[in-house]
This record gives sequence, C-alpha cells and structure tokens, in this order.
Amino acid sequence: MSDKANPTAAILIIGNEILSGRTQDINVKFLAGHLAALGHKLEEVRVVPDVPERIVRAVNELRASYDNLFTTGGIGPTHDDITSACIAAAFGVPWEKHQPTWDAMERHLGAENFNAARRRMATLPRGAVPIPTSMTIAPGFSIGNVHVMAGVPRIMQSMFMALEPVLGRGLPISMRAVHGMGVKEGSIAAGLAAIQERFPMLDLGSYPFYRETGSGVAIVAKGTDEAALDAAIAEAEALIVGQGIVAVRGEPKA
Amino acid sequence: MSDKANPTAAILIIGNEILSGRTQDINVKFLAGHLAALGHKLEEVRVVPDVPERIVRAVNELRASYDNLFTTGGIGPTHDDITSACIAAAFGVPWEKHQPTWDAMERHLGAENFNAARRRMATLPRGAVPIPTSMTIAPGFSIGNVHVMAGVPRIMQSMFMALEPVLGRGLPISMRAVHGMGVKEGSIAAGLAAIQERFPMLDLGSYPFYRETGSGVAIVAKGTDEAALDAAIAEAEALIVGQGIVAVRGEPKA
Repeated sequence: MSDKANPTAAILIIGNEILSGRTQDINVKFLAGHLAALGHKLEEVRVVPDVPERIVRAVNELRASYDNLFTTGGIGPTHDDITSACIAAAFGVPWEKHQPTWDAMERHLGAENFNAARRRMATLPRGAVPIPTSMTIAPGFSIGNVHVMAGVPRIMQSMFMALEPVLGRGLPISMRAVHGMGVKEGSIAAGLAAIQERFPMLDLGSYPFYRETGSGVAIVAKGTDEAALDAAIAEAEALIVGQGIVAVRGEPKA
Repeated sequence: MSDKANPTAAILIIGNEILSGRTQDINVKFLAGHLAALGHKLEEVRVVPDVPERIVRAVNELRASYDNLFTTGGIGPTHDDITSACIAAAFGVPWEKHQPTWDAMERHLGAENFNAARRRMATLPRGAVPIPTSMTIAPGFSIGNVHVMAGVPRIMQSMFMALEPVLGRGLPISMRAVHGMGVKEGSIAAGLAAIQERFPMLDLGSYPFYRETGSGVAIVAKGTDEAALDAAIAEAEALIVGQGIVAVRGEPKA
C-alpha cells in the first residue's frame, strides 16, 4: 500500500466480449468513480483478449507501473476463464488448490457437484488472499497489489466493495462542473487556458455536448484542493457569462 | 494496409473524462462491432490521460503492434486538446498549418472568428490526410496506420464511416449465440471445452447473465468460418438441451 496523497491505479479488462463489441463495458465507469471517491487516481485502462501471454504481459506491465491493479473477467469455471492461472504465471508462483476455498465450495455445492470445472475456481495463485462476498462462493482474490475480480458487473461491484476497507484512502478527488447552452469551445478556449494556468494543481477539461434540448459545452475541474476547485469553477462560470450566455452549475442533463 | 485475412486493430482513448468516471465510454462498442463487420480484429484497447508523454508512448507502442490504430478524443480547440500535437511528436514530424483545412475553416467561420484556438484545429502533423465529414469543419485525420478521431460519439461515428472505404476489408468476423435460462456454467464447462477443442478455428465464450426475468448462460461462438460456426453452435445447443433446459438461439434479452 502506498502512503502517497493519491495512490495510482490501473484497470485491466480481460474480455473477448468487449473486444468483439458484444458487451458494453460498464465496469470502468463504476470503478473510476469509486476510486476517485477513495482518493485513488485511475491512470490507465487496458482491454486485452483471453490469450495467456497477452494477459501475463499486461499484468506485469501494469502492476509495476501503478500502486494498484484491478482486473475484471475470466475467473469463472469454463475453458475461457484463464485469469487466475495467468496471474500465477505473471507472479511466477504455483497455481494450486486453495484449501479454505476448496473446502467451502465443496461444502456449499455438495461433493457430487464439485466437479473439475468448479475445482478450477478453488485453485488460486500461491499467496492469494480471497475477496469474500455474499454474492458468490467462488472468490475474487488479491495478490500483492493486484486485485482480481469477476467481469459480471454486480459481482464485480460486490467484490470492490469488499476491497474498499483494505485499499486505504487518499485525498478525495473531487469534480465541479458548469455548463452553458450554445457555448462554442473555440470562443472560450483562450480564457479557459488562462484559468488552467492560474490553477496548475487542477485538471480543467472542456467537453462539448449534443442533446435533444440543445448543444453546448461543459467545463469540468478536477482535483483535491477544494478551495481551488471553487475558485476555478467560479472563473469558468464568469467566462460563460462573459459570452452573454447563462451558466448553469453541474453537468448538463440528457 | 495489410493483406492478411483479418487485419488487426487497436483503440486508444485519450480521455481524462473516462478515467475520472465522469463519462461512460460508448465508442469502443461501436468501433468493435463495426471493425468485426469489416473483418478487422480488435486486439487491444487502452485509455490514457491527457498527458503528452503517455499519449506519445501509447501511440508508438500500439501503431507498431497492430495493423491499424484508432484514437478518440482530444482534437478540439481547447488547452486540453493535445492529441494532434502528440501524434506529430510520436511520428517525429512537424505539427504545422494544414493549408486546405486552414482555408476551409477560415472561409466557413469568417476571418474574425478564426482565432488562435480554432487555428490549432487546422494544424496537423505533416503528412496527415484529413477525414472529411459533413458533421464538422475541423477534421479528424489519418497518418500512416493511425486514424485520429473525435471523442464525441456522433462525430467519431461519422469519421469512422468516412474511413471505412479506405480501411479495406478482411474476412467478416461473425458471431452466433445460444442461451439457456438456469444453465450453470460449472455443469457445462467440460462439454464446452470439448466443443472448443473440436473447433480450434473459433473462439468459444461462456457468459453468465443475470436478468429480471432470470439468470442463465449465453454461449457465444466467434470466427470467420461460417460452417464451423453453425456446427459449433448446434453442439452448444445440444449441450444445453442435455441439461434438460430449453436452448434459445441468440442473445438473452434484458
């Protein structure tokens, strides 16, 4: 665990179903929002296919680069669930029976149903610590700074909630937004750049939106300095008003 | 352009707004589906923050690894729109006035509105070829095997549509699915692994779903061999029926 003000994080999605366009990922948005609230800074997301060498390489690159790595997907009982074995390979440790999980699954399912496929889910990298949730008897797990979670959103969410207490907290990363209908980015760009220069501790972003009710621009300030956030978003508001446009605090509604 | 049966592709999302959890990305699913239909194989997605060295590194890693790289985001007129300059840096070419775009924007906007911010959008890496769309006067562009598009979904989509004719086609990558309510993955895993072994030219995936109307498993086969797809999905159907469960062709509905 890092004692930096804002520990860094990456997400690795192990997911043929995302790369094929079959499935709309919603795990990144959930994790990104929750990590920000915990004060962890999400710095990278990768999606790779269910190919062992691709998974092992991505795990090793990302766990070396960031304080925490969260993976989603590939921990079920079928042939395409290879995440757990790949994590063992990435760490260079045996992939072996995890006795407490093995016993719990056998008890829960009954010996007659605890077949070879399900036994794979009780097989973990040596040193892995299960992430207990009420939602599934087969656990996610943490090993070092890598946290291995399910791909199904509601199971992933329950695993992340169980992880939160052990992740530790950084300075909460907050956002403020102000938007104006009819604002043109090209007309406020110079003013916005000047605000960014005055508040180098913040990330200032400009996001055009196109809605049924009209188009415009949302200006978003992000950072850990609450006073700076208040001051910067007030300046952004004045910038919009200076265009002769009504500025509205918050994000535009659909 | 590659003459492989299935050219490979990667997507790079340049997006603080995705990493902060502010925005739900929907560009990956659109691009993934359209690339599959064109016969291009999406092999990796990365999301990186609006930080020059991170963008340059990711562009150079991904363009070297895949036949085509598609980027989204960061080509507007504001200070946080740094993709175009980063692409020039990645290719080691000057970032300079693109005269035809410059002239078109000046004509369209009027000289009095063609300010420094908007002139940045007419500044492209040397050698870039604009991607013309009716939706915006400021273009995306291609340089080498890198295709630089907007982040706003409907603009990105119009740019991708304009790119399709020049991308070339591979063998179309098709999917077939069959699902069964109440199927348990652990009970069909061995049978499914055997089907995968009989059809090594296909990717067979198993995806649990949880819906208001009930839970179950969808089996998805993906590949370019239509006869193999038909045969494999028929075997998957029989596997579900063998569990005493009604098998339904296609994806489960919400």
